[in-house]
Amino acid sequence: MLKTAAKQFCLYSGRCLASLSPAQRIIGHEKNLWVEYSALAIRHQAVNLGQGFPDFPPPQFLKDAWSEAVDIPSAHWYTRGQGYPRLVTALSDLYSPEFGRTINPMSEIMTSVGAYESLYAALTAFTDPGDEVILIEPHFDSYSVVVEVCGGKPVYVPLKPEGDPRNANNWVLDKAEFEGAFNSKTKLLMVNTPHNPIGKLFSAEEMEFIARTCEKHNVLIISDEVYERCVFPGHVHHRIATVPGAWDRTITVGSAGKSFSMTGYKLGWAIGPQELISKLQTVHQTAVYSAPTILQEVIARCVEREIQMKGHGDAYHTQLPQIMKDGCSQIMAACQDAGLDVVEPFGGYFILVDTSPLGLEFDTSQVEYDIQCVHWLTEHKKLAGIPLSLFFGKNKHISEKYIRLCFAKSEGTLKTGGDIIRDITK
Amino acid sequence: MLKTAAKQFCLYSGRCLASLSPAQRIIGHEKNLWVEYSALAIRHQAVNLGQGFPDFPPPQFLKDAWSEAVDIPSAHWYTRGQGYPRLVTALSDLYSPEFGRTINPMSEIMTSVGAYESLYAALTAFTDPGDEVILIEPHFDSYSVVVEVCGGKPVYVPLKPEGDPRNANNWVLDKAEFEGAFNSKTKLLMVNTPHNPIGKLFSAEEMEFIARTCEKHNVLIISDEVYERCVFPGHVHHRIATVPGAWDRTITVGSAGKSFSMTGYKLGWAIGPQELISKLQTVHQTAVYSAPTILQEVIARCVEREIQMKGHGDAYHTQLPQIMKDGCSQIMAACQDAGLDVVEPFGGYFILVDTSPLGLEFDTSQVEYDIQCVHWLTEHKKLAGIPLSLFFGKNKHISEKYIRLCFAKSEGTLKTGGDIIRDITK
Repeated sequence: MLKTAAKQFCLYSGRCLASLSPAQRIIGHEKNLWVEYSALAIRHQAVNLGQGFPDFPPPQFLKDAWSEAVDIPSAHWYTRGQGYPRLVTALSDLYSPEFGRTINPMSEIMTSVGAYESLYAALTAFTDPGDEVILIEPHFDSYSVVVEVCGGKPVYVPLKPEGDPRNANNWVLDKAEFEGAFNSKTKLLMVNTPHNPIGKLFSAEEMEFIARTCEKHNVLIISDEVYERCVFPGHVHHRIATVPGAWDRTITVGSAGKSFSMTGYKLGWAIGPQELISKLQTVHQTAVYSAPTILQEVIARCVEREIQMKGHGDAYHTQLPQIMKDGCSQIMAACQDAGLDVVEPFGGYFILVDTSPLGLEFDTSQVEYDIQCVHWLTEHKKLAGIPLSLFFGKNKHISEKYIRLCFAKSEGTLKTGGDIIRDITK
Repeated sequence: MLKTAAKQFCLYSGRCLASLSPAQRIIGHEKNLWVEYSALAIRHQAVNLGQGFPDFPPPQFLKDAWSEAVDIPSAHWYTRGQGYPRLVTALSDLYSPEFGRTINPMSEIMTSVGAYESLYAALTAFTDPGDEVILIEPHFDSYSVVVEVCGGKPVYVPLKPEGDPRNANNWVLDKAEFEGAFNSKTKLLMVNTPHNPIGKLFSAEEMEFIARTCEKHNVLIISDEVYERCVFPGHVHHRIATVPGAWDRTITVGSAGKSFSMTGYKLGWAIGPQELISKLQTVHQTAVYSAPTILQEVIARCVEREIQMKGHGDAYHTQLPQIMKDGCSQIMAACQDAGLDVVEPFGGYFILVDTSPLGLEFDTSQVEYDIQCVHWLTEHKKLAGIPLSLFFGKNKHISEKYIRLCFAKSEGTLKTGGDIIRDITK
């Protein structure tokens, strides 16, 4: 059945502009949750623990990198579409030891406009109409939108708490349910670790199981690892691409914005075998051609610095896990004081808070509890979060009374947010 | 008929990776002419008059804008997806008088990752499979690729010389041929002025005719005006959106990179009625979410400066037309000395050179003359240009012996390029 858009009329000629209606692919995808909830936070002048962006100033080494980059004339000019040579070289140097293989900077890496564009390019490059794409939910909202814009069908498999739900790593796949989602139409699987919004780190065993299942069904894997540098101290990030045999079918996506806490840079990358990356490159060169050169020069310098200082206390990737852990601890402490349970995360920017003890009552016949709860908190308590149900396509009942809060925030924001949480039941 | 991609095998398991083949939409679009010809220029260490990017350092006001922007913490964070408020406000102030209407910064402007992404978003938002899109050729290569990736059909109508071909404005549409290209499947028309690669400025009468024809057939117009600030002194840029009645069906696309001669910024915008821009925004929020914040802060400052200094000799948009005219004059003089005819442009970055007097002979049964000529010039004369036939989808015979050279280059590049041209027949 064709979807229809509202009729439009030319104000000058009065003629019907019906033929100016949008393409089928975008109908139904006009709303964007980040646009909506950012506007909500601003409207109510709420403390924004909703959208996942650190609101602290750039560290000095980043500002130094900018000063130097601005003085390089060629940093202002067009660059190689698949990636600025200095940046892809630095990324190869950074990731090769982590992947346990030599990653070819010129053919096995593509830089993109945020990890977001790499995810778009990967899904668009491989999803034909009718293809099924398995999404482990809750999942980042853009996955399902892109799949649907491509004419594919998202197939949802939930993470469900096994044992105490207050430990993020207890949220696991039901193995039989996961395997049962695969069929001859399955083209792709999306993985996300550290997981947004659960805060779970997939274990080596889980990665092995997922990779083997994908191998068995000959399915491609897109692994969203944008929070890879935000793994709390003492915990380990496992890459599915490093499971033996998985490299050939895996595209790993990373983010400069998340790795250096400056999300406005909108610079990311995809890493994988040339056979796969070259297909992403076809979409990339059609949609944007290249990421901005000067941003790539700046991030190349930052990545080079991390490589030089690896393991040193002044390295940003040494500091970042503790910064994230501290932010998380502050929000957790506030929640504890308020008598609110949380799902304790082990990486990423986010924590899920169980709002049941607030005792709020809403008519949920039309709108989910958590959505109404976030609106209520934003309006009445000036605290903006994101409803967990928005990360579900099918199993929304799991989300029920959870909201997602971002702890990747400045000291001031965390303090104000924490104070609101402590007072929330009063 | 389904297109097929080469079979792949997993190196570890030896299993066929056939199901990892790319989506139909990208098959056949792997090549990108800018990737190919940039590599050719580098391989032969040729003077690059091929790709259209100025290779001079940024002006001081731009460097100052960067210094100030880097010190603003929020310039490093996520911003409003449809456009950074300060930039869309500045663009509204800049364009409202030029369009003769008040342009709403929040609903009638979208910023994008280069004009390139605005063009992609516009075509993707409105082209359904089977729709026809009229492309006036020669045309910028990405137009037809995006139309085809969307499942649309490019319909080509050529600009042909009427009278002396050595005047860019003599390259015109045959009115009957143009009208004949429209039918009930026609969804969109692409216009480009100042024209790349001809250097033509469409006249007010031509714009009126095109707009009236689109109104008659109820067809949407995308107007690529990225060279709007590169119109030679004494000449006028006519916007199709300002033809009475055309606003409602027109999306006008502009470029920060071209307007401030720093193409590496990959920042552009689309301007049009909310009904149309909102559809581009749906594609934009699906593919990239937003353009980088810091670039938008920098360009907002540059646009504000232009508004303040409008008409003043120090305004960049006062200087740029003369800079472009001077570069063009240098290449024209060299061509004249070498006995080569050119198509004299009145705006943009490019000039077409008729290579017939070189007396080169190639076997053209497989590959077009101009393509072989560019390869020969790049390899043997160390001068890189772009073959005109690559800008044609159908009427390649028109291009025959023309190559495109870029004159938006530094004094040194123009001097070296000019010297090669003068010696070219020796």
